[in-house]
Amino acid sequence: MTGSRQAQEEETLDPHDWEEIRALGRQMVDDMIDYLRDVRGRPVWQPIPEDVKTQLQDSLPRHPMPARDVYDAFKRNVLPYPTGNIHPRFWGWVMGSGTVTAMLSEMLAAGINLNQGGGAQAGNLVESQVISWCKEMLGFPESASGLLVSGGSMANLIGLAVARNSRAGFDIRREGIVGAPGPMRFYASSEVHSSVQKAIELLGLGNNALRLIPVRPDFTIDIQELKDAIRRDRSNGFLPLCVIGCAGTVNTGATDPLATLADLCSDEQLWFHVDGAFGALAALSPELRQAVTGMERADSIAFDMHKWMYLPYEVGCTLVRDAEAHRHAFTLTPDYLEHTTRGIGGSEIWFSDYGVQLTRGFRALKVWMSLKEHGIEKFGRLIRQNVEQARYLETLVRATPELQLVAPVPLNIVCFRYSGSRADAGALDALNKELLLRLHEGGVAAPSYTVIDGKYALRVCITNHRTKREDLDLLVAEVLRLGRGLEG
Amino acid sequence: MTGSRQAQEEETLDPHDWEEIRALGRQMVDDMIDYLRDVRGRPVWQPIPEDVKTQLQDSLPRHPMPARDVYDAFKRNVLPYPTGNIHPRFWGWVMGSGTVTAMLSEMLAAGINLNQGGGAQAGNLVESQVISWCKEMLGFPESASGLLVSGGSMANLIGLAVARNSRAGFDIRREGIVGAPGPMRFYASSEVHSSVQKAIELLGLGNNALRLIPVRPDFTIDIQELKDAIRRDRSNGFLPLCVIGCAGTVNTGATDPLATLADLCSDEQLWFHVDGAFGALAALSPELRQAVTGMERADSIAFDMHKWMYLPYEVGCTLVRDAEAHRHAFTLTPDYLEHTTRGIGGSEIWFSDYGVQLTRGFRALKVWMSLKEHGIEKFGRLIRQNVEQARYLETLVRATPELQLVAPVPLNIVCFRYSGSRADAGALDALNKELLLRLHEGGVAAPSYTVIDGKYALRVCITNHRTKREDLDLLVAEVLRLGRGLEG
Repeated sequence: MTGSRQAQEEETLDPHDWEEIRALGRQMVDDMIDYLRDVRGRPVWQPIPEDVKTQLQDSLPRHPMPARDVYDAFKRNVLPYPTGNIHPRFWGWVMGSGTVTAMLSEMLAAGINLNQGGGAQAGNLVESQVISWCKEMLGFPESASGLLVSGGSMANLIGLAVARNSRAGFDIRREGIVGAPGPMRFYASSEVHSSVQKAIELLGLGNNALRLIPVRPDFTIDIQELKDAIRRDRSNGFLPLCVIGCAGTVNTGATDPLATLADLCSDEQLWFHVDGAFGALAALSPELRQAVTGMERADSIAFDMHKWMYLPYEVGCTLVRDAEAHRHAFTLTPDYLEHTTRGIGGSEIWFSDYGVQLTRGFRALKVWMSLKEHGIEKFGRLIRQNVEQARYLETLVRATPELQLVAPVPLNIVCFRYSGSRADAGALDALNKELLLRLHEGGVAAPSYTVIDGKYALRVCITNHRTKREDLDLLVAEVLRLGRGLEG
Repeated sequence: MTGSRQAQEEETLDPHDWEEIRALGRQMVDDMIDYLRDVRGRPVWQPIPEDVKTQLQDSLPRHPMPARDVYDAFKRNVLPYPTGNIHPRFWGWVMGSGTVTAMLSEMLAAGINLNQGGGAQAGNLVESQVISWCKEMLGFPESASGLLVSGGSMANLIGLAVARNSRAGFDIRREGIVGAPGPMRFYASSEVHSSVQKAIELLGLGNNALRLIPVRPDFTIDIQELKDAIRRDRSNGFLPLCVIGCAGTVNTGATDPLATLADLCSDEQLWFHVDGAFGALAALSPELRQAVTGMERADSIAFDMHKWMYLPYEVGCTLVRDAEAHRHAFTLTPDYLEHTTRGIGGSEIWFSDYGVQLTRGFRALKVWMSLKEHGIEKFGRLIRQNVEQARYLETLVRATPELQLVAPVPLNIVCFRYSGSRADAGALDALNKELLLRLHEGGVAAPSYTVIDGKYALRVCITNHRTKREDLDLLVAEVLRLGRGLEG
């Protein structure tokens, strides 16, 4: 048999009928444009009906189903039941809203399907450009390195891995942590994000290695306590290695005194890592930039574009001042990846040398297209707008006797609760827990919650380009309505 | 000022003109459908012109640009210069081709923009279902746990982290590796993928902890050498902890004797991890399944859907037999994430408890839609088709005196070189290096290369649903043409 005769029997995943899939693709665009345009008219969130849950338990499909039917199943069983973060009144946890252009970019990225591990292809230049832009945004030198990653957790892991490897003082990649002359120590405030603990554990340091330093009343790290802890550790034979500063804590949006931390790290010769998952982006607003002054002196910064740059999941970034230290922490060049100067492998850029992933998708494209479309100044204005909205909500809360602010509002997060006419703290915790659930279930608004000084509080984190002040008016009205109902 | 009056001044990233972006989105679908339909007619790869490189170095955009102009820049400077892996004649490294439906799924996923960390939303059910399907595909029990991740590197990292944490014998998350009673040891063949070394290093174990065991002539692990190494290590005070079996090595597609490794791990009470980045998927074909028998007895498996399931980047998966061990290695539940039973947080499924990422995108959707559309049997047939194509190429090589096969072809990888009339090994290395670059530069076909027993070889790894046998005929003809030209 010749090759060409056999070829006729060969199968492919490409469609038989390209026009049919083209029509379906256009339909999807139409539906998704409508879906996003009309989001304000839908509930923020709704529970998943039992019959939908059942339908999402079918066993492994063996036989084909027309693409249109698959899409219908998506429209019926998935599309109506999102997390809600695309909605103007979603302010839970720290989530981004997504944008229309970035949604379309993801389609383009999946179509061209570049492998951003490295090589001579345009995506590597796009990602390099995006990383250069990130350095410019956050005041890092062009000589720094960077990597787009899945999000803040991975961005912190990368930064802390470089810290560990470059400051250990021996070949930790070869010898492992058992080769250390003493237990290493990392420092952060007690408000630091859980992903830092997760990274420390994964890196084999043990969470004992993470010294949680008490915070001041404004939820920023107590510098004197930090200094004392470092001194104590040094005299007890521990190896202080790294300080993690928070630019925007997850609970209240507090930002540590980063310039002071930068000085301290310089004096103590410690690696200075900034977890700026969302707060780092305050630097984009000329009016807010001073809140994160000192961040530009960090050895590494972790931040997300899928939070306060509003892009769809997933995209975060780590910047590292010492590019060589960054590369040295991760590079591995096996025989079959030896870099060439010509052909597909002929590239100076190998992002796989700077992080965990060897194969990497083209998450850079949505950042690139979005920054080109809107320009960085607009992102700065939107970030400032969210901060002003938080201050507006703070004002509403302060002006309403039945509501109680439970934390300062330094940035874009407002923690408050319904206090009504009662004073019993335990009862107020229970009341506000129920109130939050009814807010979600009613589909009107979606804050999340936290516990501040032992008080259960609604937590409104505004990283949402669709939010208007009227949405916050509605939130307050609904909290009062529900609170009064629960009290009565 | 009232809220509603101020609202009119507020900005958003949503388009002013929804119909304009709708038209652009439809245009993008049209263009990408054409782009994929016509891929066979384009070169596999072409170098990026200098003026394009220059244009991809503009500084941070400050001001807006119409979305259509941004898209034009993409079409002009990015789309013509891909890695090439979407092309029928791309067989470099181990890359997937991507599919049309999965491309569209990525748009849907970015539009709904779920956060798959957890919560009561349909995406979590979709991912749970996909993971159940994966267990069924690979013969894992339903009680096992799983997580979709960015790819094989992360999938290996997750599996090995669970191995480390659950077999260390003490609270390693708290104490770190310094708490271990002795140096831990992991075992794999010398052909194991570099991502395993990277994971071991990141986990703080040091690559000294990874014992590379010699392989037999078929490039599978030498079991006797492995047993000897374990015995030696135990008697020298090391702590053998885990064996990593390869299902499809990256160099030649060799698969270790997994059933034998499963027995050995059971006897020695070691964690059995399988790196099945692409090879694990051989299980989808009834005719190939026996090659990976024993894999279903592993404690953890890492594999990719963006390789031999042809889906666009990124999606890989880790399965872990002991779900509790998996969760225990990663779970962290800070105050603000305390799980509830109602509202948005009211979910039993928190994927963030099973891996590095807290925020997670909806990569599950493209897997779900693709498996529904094509059914698993078709994926099995395509995988078998690729293996048969590899055998076909092997036959062509064996039948051609000027070509030399340099490794067995157990699966979908063929390593061969042009040997022509010469016998000088050094000259042949140089000739084949140049030959490969010209293959790339000519745009006809894109193998990658490797070094086998000191011999530089072209390496054809067929994880491509668009490849036909005639493409392999063309490859052979072109290799002969180039080889003869280089000799002459």
